[in-house]
Amino acid sequence: MSPRRPALLALALACLLPGLASAATPYRSAQQILDASPASDWRTPDPANLLVMNLASGQVVIELAPAFAPQHVANIQILAHEHFWDGESIYRSQDNFVVQFGDADADDAAKAKPLGSAKRKLPAEFQRDSKGLKVTVLPDKDGWADHTGFVDGFPVGQDTANGKTWLAHCYGALGAGRNNDEDSSIGAELYVVTGQSPRQLDRNITVVGRVLKGMELLSALPRGPAPMGFYADASQRTPIVSIQRVSDLPESQRPTLQVLRTDSKTFMDTVEARRNRVDDFYKRAAGHIDLCNIPVPVR
Amino acid sequence: MSPRRPALLALALACLLPGLASAATPYRSAQQILDASPASDWRTPDPANLLVMNLASGQVVIELAPAFAPQHVANIQILAHEHFWDGESIYRSQDNFVVQFGDADADDAAKAKPLGSAKRKLPAEFQRDSKGLKVTVLPDKDGWADHTGFVDGFPVGQDTANGKTWLAHCYGALGAGRNNDEDSSIGAELYVVTGQSPRQLDRNITVVGRVLKGMELLSALPRGPAPMGFYADASQRTPIVSIQRVSDLPESQRPTLQVLRTDSKTFMDTVEARRNRVDDFYKRAAGHIDLCNIPVPVR
Repeated sequence: MSPRRPALLALALACLLPGLASAATPYRSAQQILDASPASDWRTPDPANLLVMNLASGQVVIELAPAFAPQHVANIQILAHEHFWDGESIYRSQDNFVVQFGDADADDAAKAKPLGSAKRKLPAEFQRDSKGLKVTVLPDKDGWADHTGFVDGFPVGQDTANGKTWLAHCYGALGAGRNNDEDSSIGAELYVVTGQSPRQLDRNITVVGRVLKGMELLSALPRGPAPMGFYADASQRTPIVSIQRVSDLPESQRPTLQVLRTDSKTFMDTVEARRNRVDDFYKRAAGHIDLCNIPVPVR
Repeated sequence: MSPRRPALLALALACLLPGLASAATPYRSAQQILDASPASDWRTPDPANLLVMNLASGQVVIELAPAFAPQHVANIQILAHEHFWDGESIYRSQDNFVVQFGDADADDAAKAKPLGSAKRKLPAEFQRDSKGLKVTVLPDKDGWADHTGFVDGFPVGQDTANGKTWLAHCYGALGAGRNNDEDSSIGAELYVVTGQSPRQLDRNITVVGRVLKGMELLSALPRGPAPMGFYADASQRTPIVSIQRVSDLPESQRPTLQVLRTDSKTFMDTVEARRNRVDDFYKRAAGHIDLCNIPVPVR
């Protein structure tokens, strides 16, 4: 095999092809583990907590996290139900950071879209009491939090001394834009993390959910001008056809998604398969995995 | 100020506006620190180690790292000098991972582009002896390496017990695609990290440099089909007009870039400003920063 032939396949192999088992320690790839998973390891998200964002390029599916941001989620559900975002836009894409969407005219009282029945003021929901949460804790070191792990598919950080848990700013996290005041977000203007996880925002902004499907429609949008990525002219914005609450859709139009249960053995096995991957391609097991390097499988 | 008005500015403020100094502990933003930096804190990369990738959309500037991958860098310099990549393409964009470029026909002996004077076989250059390197070490915890830090602007990991240092797979890292054999890369097929830092690849692939400018031209490319992001048909590939060694260009056509010295106090001050940012927007200092969350300023 020529040294050039492998080129096209190189990283493909690095990421996706199942590793071959060695005689001594059979390695199962994450995909092999998933393929063998029982149906009971998968959960179907509550349609009341799902949003679909319809773009000309396709559909983005979002799961909201009422366990972490109940008041923001309730407001977002009202806004979606009342078609607040329909005809609005994605008005910002900052490289290696976020896309942001909502009403680009929100600053202009004369042009701002009415908020309908949604609340105009909400408390900050940066973190919550850990009590009552079932957290699948990772053994891996983290610099941003005492503990990290997952709750119902959402990556979280924990402050164990103070008994607090929060949603982490990993790739695909959906957050509520705010001004300087902690309680200045209401969920009408939202952002999605498209770059290296900006964990410094953890507990500084209310995270309200995460993208389950369609990230590539957001992450590949042309960047707006540096430094902040707001599109310089309105024609560069990406129109939002609609954002709908899935529970408002007829059964036949609802996306059918299942998310791997993060409290399942299958999930932990896939994490371990990534943490200590050694196969034909990987020569050295990392011995570590970062919270935001762990994809939560969706099918 | 209406709770909706701030929406457009919310994250902008989060990232970019200088923080206001409080009377007690004046906080200087990273930008304020940079604005006050002496000229001697900036270095001009050696044109022999710079590449420009010319795309229809603009120019990507790459700095090679001969201190870490001397044989790969030498081969890449030959390939650029002999116009190997001119007319080739970016043939892969995998969401939250990498773009890959080179000769899309490399697998096909009948169509593969000749390699000219470049070597057909190189040793793996996954890591090097720490001896002789001046590393600016970060105090921050890292799960992937004993120590992390910077060498001449490049983010690195270190294994202190074994005295080894390697280039880390942060956003913008340029790596040499390979097949299963460690020594199967020659630098003709290259990838750039566009997603959450895949540090599990550290010491598993030879990293040869990093993108200094123009990342947004690579990171925003439409993703190829899942799971691997290779474009299904050739028309979706992004043509590479040329990749040139800057030292082959007349002075008048050379990009004029300076990179902040990562062994300068200015750099460490900007890192600290990000690590413990508390200003009008940030309510809680993270107390931590990750190697791959630290941008190395380029001007």
